[in-house]
Amino acid sequence: MKTRAAVAFEAKRPLEIVELDLEGPKAGEVLVEIMATGICHTDAYTLDGLDSEGLFPSVLGHEGAGIVREVGAGVTSVVPGDHVIPLYTPECRQCKSCLSGKTNLCTAIRATQGKGLMPDGTTRFSYKGQPIHHYMGCSTFSNFTVLPEIAVAKIRTDAPFKTSCYVGCGVTTGVGAVVNTAKVEVGDTVIVFGLGGIGLNVLQGARLAGAAMIVGVDINPDREEWGKRFGMTHFVNPKTVDGDLVAHLVALTDGGADYTFDCTGNTDVMRQALEACHRGWGTSIIIGVAEAGKEISTRPFQLVTGRNWRGTAFGGAKGRTDVPKIVDWYMNGKIEIDPMITHVLSLDEINKGFDLMHAGESIRSVVVY
Amino acid sequence: MKTRAAVAFEAKRPLEIVELDLEGPKAGEVLVEIMATGICHTDAYTLDGLDSEGLFPSVLGHEGAGIVREVGAGVTSVVPGDHVIPLYTPECRQCKSCLSGKTNLCTAIRATQGKGLMPDGTTRFSYKGQPIHHYMGCSTFSNFTVLPEIAVAKIRTDAPFKTSCYVGCGVTTGVGAVVNTAKVEVGDTVIVFGLGGIGLNVLQGARLAGAAMIVGVDINPDREEWGKRFGMTHFVNPKTVDGDLVAHLVALTDGGADYTFDCTGNTDVMRQALEACHRGWGTSIIIGVAEAGKEISTRPFQLVTGRNWRGTAFGGAKGRTDVPKIVDWYMNGKIEIDPMITHVLSLDEINKGFDLMHAGESIRSVVVY
Repeated sequence: MKTRAAVAFEAKRPLEIVELDLEGPKAGEVLVEIMATGICHTDAYTLDGLDSEGLFPSVLGHEGAGIVREVGAGVTSVVPGDHVIPLYTPECRQCKSCLSGKTNLCTAIRATQGKGLMPDGTTRFSYKGQPIHHYMGCSTFSNFTVLPEIAVAKIRTDAPFKTSCYVGCGVTTGVGAVVNTAKVEVGDTVIVFGLGGIGLNVLQGARLAGAAMIVGVDINPDREEWGKRFGMTHFVNPKTVDGDLVAHLVALTDGGADYTFDCTGNTDVMRQALEACHRGWGTSIIIGVAEAGKEISTRPFQLVTGRNWRGTAFGGAKGRTDVPKIVDWYMNGKIEIDPMITHVLSLDEINKGFDLMHAGESIRSVVVY
Repeated sequence: MKTRAAVAFEAKRPLEIVELDLEGPKAGEVLVEIMATGICHTDAYTLDGLDSEGLFPSVLGHEGAGIVREVGAGVTSVVPGDHVIPLYTPECRQCKSCLSGKTNLCTAIRATQGKGLMPDGTTRFSYKGQPIHHYMGCSTFSNFTVLPEIAVAKIRTDAPFKTSCYVGCGVTTGVGAVVNTAKVEVGDTVIVFGLGGIGLNVLQGARLAGAAMIVGVDINPDREEWGKRFGMTHFVNPKTVDGDLVAHLVALTDGGADYTFDCTGNTDVMRQALEACHRGWGTSIIIGVAEAGKEISTRPFQLVTGRNWRGTAFGGAKGRTDVPKIVDWYMNGKIEIDPMITHVLSLDEINKGFDLMHAGESIRSVVVY
């Protein structure tokens, strides 16, 4: 079949809207009509050539929502007509990681996904006979895409695609970091470093969990208003703090936070986030993706005196299990998404979405097909 | 009153056995006759002048066992005749840390303890009119010492002092790191880096917890036999490993350990211990005390992919609550101490204990009064 798609033919070049050839789903795969897709910093990171493992040509996009149109042999968990969210972190429920019950980092198809291929080692996309890579197992910048069955989460049919697609990455990453990884409890104190899309979702996750004090930290003063819309109780702009930021935050939180979250990807901020944790039990969670080659450091004394350093990917969410729940939370008003969608574009306008993000003017641009 | 004590008059000089003046216990304090004390690396670290916060002159020693001889006003939890272990990490049960239920790092008397003083800001020891500092709130290198009531754990009277004194630091630090901090479960895989006294106690803690695979890592081949006596199932000598130690350990443990413990104090080893953890859930626990100014580092990717970096002090044990239990475990044969006591000395021979430790010939030298 044919599909319209925004193709990244090479790094550092705008996407090109072309018509691709798409092979139908093989055994264990499904064909999904993507109805909407967010544009995420990770897509830009790859397109900008910053990901040393980035593959070209490829169809980017990993934050989508759509409808199953066809299923391959042996597919049992979804049928045509089901609404789904593609999962760049799949959930096979059979590998050592899934069976451990301790992690969402399913390893069933990790090797081929990293190579931009379906689990059988081939690609379904091609352009004028030339193979085009899949991206993060999703490739939602295509109107139709093929995914492994274990990489789609079935969601309720009344959820709007335009907003629920954001659950495919940013919402789950931020809210999940709070509820799955940190397991923040009622009355806890939380500090969130970096109030972009992920940071805002951490804020509303902390609000959902009943945190008593939710501190947002950002060098951009415009983020104060954004943060307050999603549950932030205190805003700290490091540029206006006299003296040491960590000491300021420890004083503000009466000894440090129960949980801190780095949503900046800056390794110096990651250290501050750890050291702003409460002695004895504070836990810092790294969400942001750091520049290649950068390392985190601290004095071991910080850990010996009871601080914990952790990380999270896809908010610790088991995709097929947890993503439908997060969509329910959205539909039931427990979390918000609508105000975070700052720009709605057509596929033809997709490069504008990248420009808006680079200019810092967008929390989330969404392409609606 | 008078007491014989080994006094550290200044750094890098042998201890001197002298008779000190000792004031009796003030309100909330107890007088303890120390019956036995271990000689720990931390005492040597201070005596060698490596601890920038070390105070002189002082009575070192923090790993003792003895008998309460007198109690000050208001003391209710112990009476003369009770057998006790001094606690350098007290347990007041009333501070924010104690009440949190999440940490053993009681803060009730931290400020004065760090200054070598009793909670009222004075010292009980003096020599020819000159004040002598307390050390870690314990000063067990004195036949009699005064301690805050919250800094003694009452233990059973049938436990021998010569061995149970080791519960005052090394045993609790190692066994506690496994059972209180890591909470190792039956069937888990554990790697222990450094098989000195702490490492051996981590090994037997892992055995007690039912770990299935217990790997010991040490560059000293003599430690293999020691490790096996305390539950180690596999020994790895980094000097005989071809290629990367972490890769070797990850392969040996089928993907990495559930828990790793650093008992070396070497920050490079701490990094190896983290990276030898299983992706998705492995937790590394720092026990060793690093050299001043040294920092730990890793790529944040290690944490984002599910490894946890933590630390522990005094094995996460709440002293008055947990230390008596560990003495019970010893008396009931669940853990061993006797074979770890390699040398028994008199107070007059205490400097020999430091020499043996520096020469690596002692797991634990104990002074019996």
